[in-house]
Amino acid sequence: MENVYIGVDLGGTNLRVGLVDQNGQMLQYKQIPTEAEAGYETIIERMIALIKDVKKAYSAKSIGIGCPGPLNPFDGIVVSPPNLPGWKDIPITKLVEKEIGIPVYLVNDANAAALGEAMFGGGHGKDSSFYITVSTGIGGGYVQNNRLIQGEHGYSAEIGNMIIKPGGPKHANMNAGSLEALASGTSIAREGRERLGISGGTEEVFRYAEEGDQMAIAIIDEAVDALAIGIANLVHSVDPDVFILGGGVMKAKEMILPLLREKVDGYVYEGLRGKITIESAKLHDKAGIVGAAMHGRQKAENNRKEE
Amino acid sequence: MENVYIGVDLGGTNLRVGLVDQNGQMLQYKQIPTEAEAGYETIIERMIALIKDVKKAYSAKSIGIGCPGPLNPFDGIVVSPPNLPGWKDIPITKLVEKEIGIPVYLVNDANAAALGEAMFGGGHGKDSSFYITVSTGIGGGYVQNNRLIQGEHGYSAEIGNMIIKPGGPKHANMNAGSLEALASGTSIAREGRERLGISGGTEEVFRYAEEGDQMAIAIIDEAVDALAIGIANLVHSVDPDVFILGGGVMKAKEMILPLLREKVDGYVYEGLRGKITIESAKLHDKAGIVGAAMHGRQKAENNRKEE
Repeated sequence: MENVYIGVDLGGTNLRVGLVDQNGQMLQYKQIPTEAEAGYETIIERMIALIKDVKKAYSAKSIGIGCPGPLNPFDGIVVSPPNLPGWKDIPITKLVEKEIGIPVYLVNDANAAALGEAMFGGGHGKDSSFYITVSTGIGGGYVQNNRLIQGEHGYSAEIGNMIIKPGGPKHANMNAGSLEALASGTSIAREGRERLGISGGTEEVFRYAEEGDQMAIAIIDEAVDALAIGIANLVHSVDPDVFILGGGVMKAKEMILPLLREKVDGYVYEGLRGKITIESAKLHDKAGIVGAAMHGRQKAENNRKEE
Repeated sequence: MENVYIGVDLGGTNLRVGLVDQNGQMLQYKQIPTEAEAGYETIIERMIALIKDVKKAYSAKSIGIGCPGPLNPFDGIVVSPPNLPGWKDIPITKLVEKEIGIPVYLVNDANAAALGEAMFGGGHGKDSSFYITVSTGIGGGYVQNNRLIQGEHGYSAEIGNMIIKPGGPKHANMNAGSLEALASGTSIAREGRERLGISGGTEEVFRYAEEGDQMAIAIIDEAVDALAIGIANLVHSVDPDVFILGGGVMKAKEMILPLLREKVDGYVYEGLRGKITIESAKLHDKAGIVGAAMHGRQKAENNRKEE
C-alpha cells in the first residue's frame, strides 16, 4: 500500500480537500463552497465529512490543514482570519484529530502553497525557494531543502507587511507603505478607482493597460516596482535559488514578469544582475493542498522520530 | 588530542589568526597590522606565517578565512574588496592550502562573525539568528541550526544594500536609500558633518546627542529608525529567534538598543510586539575568527562525508 496524506485548503471562498501521494500526485479531490457565514462548527463538520470521503479507500497517515492567518501553527489554533468571520482561537487540529484519529497539523495557507510549489512546482530540484502570492493580499513562504522555514513566531514570509515606502499608503492592520498596500490586487484596484475612475478592479486596470492607457500603465509600473524592491530586499536577506510568483494578480504574468525581472536587476548588486531567477507558480490552486499534505507528513514523521 | 581549527580574520586594518577548539575557545591568537598597501602577495605570505605559528604544537584539521566582500565563497576567490586595494580575483584558499596542506575555506567576514556569535555568543542555544554589524558599512549573517545560510549566489545577509527609503541617499555602489546609506557609521558621520558642522565622525555625533543636542539626537533617531525598518522587514521575511547587533557603532548600544527595540515594535504585527529579541554581540572582535574556524570545520567535515 502506498503512502498517502491528506491536504486541506480552507479559504474564505472554497473548502478543498485532497489525498496526495508522496510524489505530490492528487489521488482524490473534493471541493465545496466554504460559505464562511455558516460559522466554524458547520465548516469544520463539512471538512471532516470531506476528509472521511477522500480517505475512504486509503490508509492516510496524516492531515495538513492550510488556513489563512493569523494562526498559531505550533499549537494548531486558527486565531482570527479576516475572511473567516466568527473564527476566534479555534483549536482546529484537535477538533479534526478527535474525529479522524490520525495526526493533524495546521499551516498558514501561503506557507502551504510555498511548500507545494517548492517540492513539485516552480522550486522542484532547488535547494531553496521563496514563494510570493500576489492576490487580494500578499503572502508567501520560504522553503529550504523541502522544509518550510516558519520562523520563531510563525511570521516568516509575512512579506505583505514589509515596509517598502515609509509613510506610504496604509492598508488594513499593516505598516504604512507596506508591500501589500502598494502591490496587491487590492491596491491596484484602489489606484484604478482613484486615478482611472473605474470600478472593475484589478483585471480592468490590466485591460486598460493592455489597451495602452498611460495612467493604467503607470499604476501597474508602480505596483511592480514595489514588488521588485521587496524581492531585491529578499535577495539581500536570504538569496534563495528561485522566486516563485503565484496568486490571482499573476494571471497577468505576461505583463508583470518581464517588467519585474528588469526592475529587480536594477535593485541588486551588479554581480547579481541577470542571475535572479523569478518564475511563475506551476501548481496553481493545487499548491495549497499538496503543500499542506506534505507539511502534515513531515510533521508527523518528525514527531514519530522524537517519540 | 583534541580537535582544533584555524580561523583567520583578514580586515583592511588588522590581520588576525586564531586556533580554536570545538567549544569556541581560542587556544592561540596572533594579530598584526594588515598594511593593506603591501599588496596581496605579501599579505598572504604573512598570513601563512601566522597560521604556521599558531598551529605549531597542534594538528589543526581545517582553516577558515573571513574576508570582506565581494568574494566568491564557493570557489574561494576574493573578488575586489574596497579596503584591500589591488586584490582582484585572488584564489586565496588555493594559495594557502598549497602551503599548509589542510583544507581551506573562504567566508564573508560578516557571515563569519554571524556564525561565531550564533554558536558561542548572542545566539547560543537558539535555532536561528540574524547577525547585523553596524560599522563603517552594514553587513550581516543568517544562521540556522549553527549553519550559515549563504544563499544561492553567496549574497545572503548583504543587508547593507536593502532598500529602506526608495530614492533616498546614495552610498558607494549601493541602492539609493539603502540601509547602509541611512544607518551606517559612514552615514551618521556624513549627517554630523552636514547638519552639525562637525568633523569628528560617528562618535562625536553620539557625544553631542548625550549632551542633549537636538540635531544630533535627530540624526541618531533617523539612523535607528532605518535600522528598525530593516529589522522589521527581516522579521516579516524569516522571523529569526534573535537579532544580534555588533560592529563599532554598537559601542553606543545603551543609546541605540532601547530606541531600536521600541521602533521595531512599532513596525511589526501586533501579535509580535514585545516578542522580538534584539541583543548585542558577545564575542566582539573574536567572533570573526571563531566563526571562520567553525565554518571551515563544517565545510571540511561535509566534504569528507561526501567523498
